[in-house]
Amino acid sequence: MQDSNQFAGRFLGVLGGMGPLAGATFVNRLVLLTPATSDQHHIPAILWNDPRVPGRPAAFLHQGEDPLPWMLNGIRHLEQAGAQAIAIPCNTAHLWFDAMQAHTRLPILHIVDAVIANLRDSGITDGRVGLLATGATLASQLYQTALTANGYECVVPESDEIERWCTAPIGLVKENRLDDAQEALTPGVAALHGRGVQAVILGCTELPLALPLARRTWDMPIVDSIDALARAAIAWYFDSSLAPYSPSN
Amino acid sequence: MQDSNQFAGRFLGVLGGMGPLAGATFVNRLVLLTPATSDQHHIPAILWNDPRVPGRPAAFLHQGEDPLPWMLNGIRHLEQAGAQAIAIPCNTAHLWFDAMQAHTRLPILHIVDAVIANLRDSGITDGRVGLLATGATLASQLYQTALTANGYECVVPESDEIERWCTAPIGLVKENRLDDAQEALTPGVAALHGRGVQAVILGCTELPLALPLARRTWDMPIVDSIDALARAAIAWYFDSSLAPYSPSN
Repeated sequence: MQDSNQFAGRFLGVLGGMGPLAGATFVNRLVLLTPATSDQHHIPAILWNDPRVPGRPAAFLHQGEDPLPWMLNGIRHLEQAGAQAIAIPCNTAHLWFDAMQAHTRLPILHIVDAVIANLRDSGITDGRVGLLATGATLASQLYQTALTANGYECVVPESDEIERWCTAPIGLVKENRLDDAQEALTPGVAALHGRGVQAVILGCTELPLALPLARRTWDMPIVDSIDALARAAIAWYFDSSLAPYSPSN
Repeated sequence: MQDSNQFAGRFLGVLGGMGPLAGATFVNRLVLLTPATSDQHHIPAILWNDPRVPGRPAAFLHQGEDPLPWMLNGIRHLEQAGAQAIAIPCNTAHLWFDAMQAHTRLPILHIVDAVIANLRDSGITDGRVGLLATGATLASQLYQTALTANGYECVVPESDEIERWCTAPIGLVKENRLDDAQEALTPGVAALHGRGVQAVILGCTELPLALPLARRTWDMPIVDSIDALARAAIAWYFDSSLAPYSPSN
């Protein structure tokens, strides 16, 4: 189904729900980071926020139901609704990036590319960088491979630390226990700081929810994968080198 | 197009974009107010966040383009995506409520009903209640009629106060100037408090964005139309008296 010309224009699709607070917060940050002086200057976006997608970390470890059909269901709905690019505010979901991209003609903005661009924009172009993420994202080397290829040295938590500094706060966010999550995450950021990193990447979209901007008091950048992806989406939206939207594209 | 059974289930449609930060914040509050212990316990929702809808207050005063075709375009997309009820986190949009409801078989949750239910749940069942909203919402008597019918006395700002306490902070929110918006709104809440109201209704969904929970320091309830509508949506989702979802419904 095609939109009439009256409603045509560039439209961002957001495959959210993984988790749902990260999906909602991504749209919130997208709005707040967009230069705008009225509603009509903001970015048209549609958020598919289906939280029933089976858990990504368990599935990656072959211990749970396959989330891919649920992700593709969301992408199909975003396509039908008229999205022209897709942002996925879930890092672990990017372990299925190639499979998702193979099923859609829409460009999917890669969250790791967005984080590395944000790191560079923060003035950090090489050296030691800390990473906190789900056990699955860490085990997959998703970030480590890309960081190494871009000249960084990636510092990750020890295996017993992943549970305390990553798995625990992520689970607490999904229970809406944001203060408890902050308490669990903070020692992890502090410890990586003590290990001489120049920045810490919050490489799971639940982690920024546990550490609001106002509480990031370290003298180093905290690279937030929600904000990084929102900045990439804004860059896509305002990229005048792309063909203007046409319903027949 | 029907979903396969695997993906069937109750799904909330959110007609947002009016403004975009209110749409995103509504989904955020929906998640945070839902009792849940994992992603999969949260409410499946789809947010149509198209901020290009022509300004509602101007259109109501016959000074601008008609927003209704844009609202119906959003509703049509939400229907196609599988929504089974619609929440609209914009009070002024409810001046077109009957026209929207006439165009869809899905129930639209009325924001004024949600606010009155929230007022009752706060223990306020009659007496003087303050209202801050757009000039159009105030002029339409949307809230005043419903409040009077429910036994309340509605206290609204004088005409010169509407600009300072409502129009100005709403415009500042749409520019992402939340601190400035708070500065403009606060004297309005304080003044209504001084006029002996038992509660103040933030009857425009931009206003709660200017007055975060932590800054509501008055000894009276502030009834927030975003949270009230989110609570109504949660009640709808968990209402076991409704027929279970079936794609053939």
